Amino acid sequence: MSLTDKKCVACRGNEAPLSRSEAEKLQKQVPQWEISEKGISLVRSFKFKNFKQSLSFVNKVGELAEEQGHHPDFSFGWGYCHVVLMTHAINGLHENDFIMAAKIDKI
Amino acid sequence: MSLTDKKCVACRGNEAPLSRSEAEKLQKQVPQWEISEKGISLVRSFKFKNFKQSLSFVNKVGELAEEQGHHPDFSFGWGYCHVVLMTHAINGLHENDFIMAAKIDKI
Repeated sequence: MSLTDKKCVACRGNEAPLSRSEAEKLQKQVPQWEISEKGISLVRSFKFKNFKQSLSFVNKVGELAEEQGHHPDFSFGWGYCHVVLMTHAINGLHENDFIMAAKIDKI
Repeated sequence: MSLTDKKCVACRGNEAPLSRSEAEKLQKQVPQWEISEKGISLVRSFKFKNFKQSLSFVNKVGELAEEQGHHPDFSFGWGYCHVVLMTHAINGLHENDFIMAAKIDKI
């Protein structure tokens, strides 16, 4: 089953975060995302033509986040948006983060 | 005239940024905003109960930004939003930033 067909599952915080090699395996399915240096988050930067487009993208990702119950952190402004995915409950990466990444790529 | 009654004016980039003492004078009208260490931006952090409220705030500030033609940079996620105001064209603070700050405070 591809990541985009999966849904984020409730993460109770008692699971171990993915190891770097597990994360790198999943990252092959979302190659435009980078695993952070410490291996605890996934990051992708997007460029836009103006502020309106950045904000519109933020709203689309926000809608998806509410739907999946998994919320990224955003830095955005005129013409750009950086999205950071991590699972705060386990202070690291969970399959949910890769599922979100794949779904955001489809926006 | 109070800051909230003013409108952001077109900044052509050939004006000098505000000095720290000029900025500190205006900051008294928006005391919840902090002037950054280098004196080139104004920052305020907001807290919310959930993701939906953060996103709703971002949209209200975004609408104001489009109206005024002056766009902040945002970092936000579940329950929080940091807003940074600066005038990129002059790489520093302009009265416009304080006008935006005062208007954001009214949201």
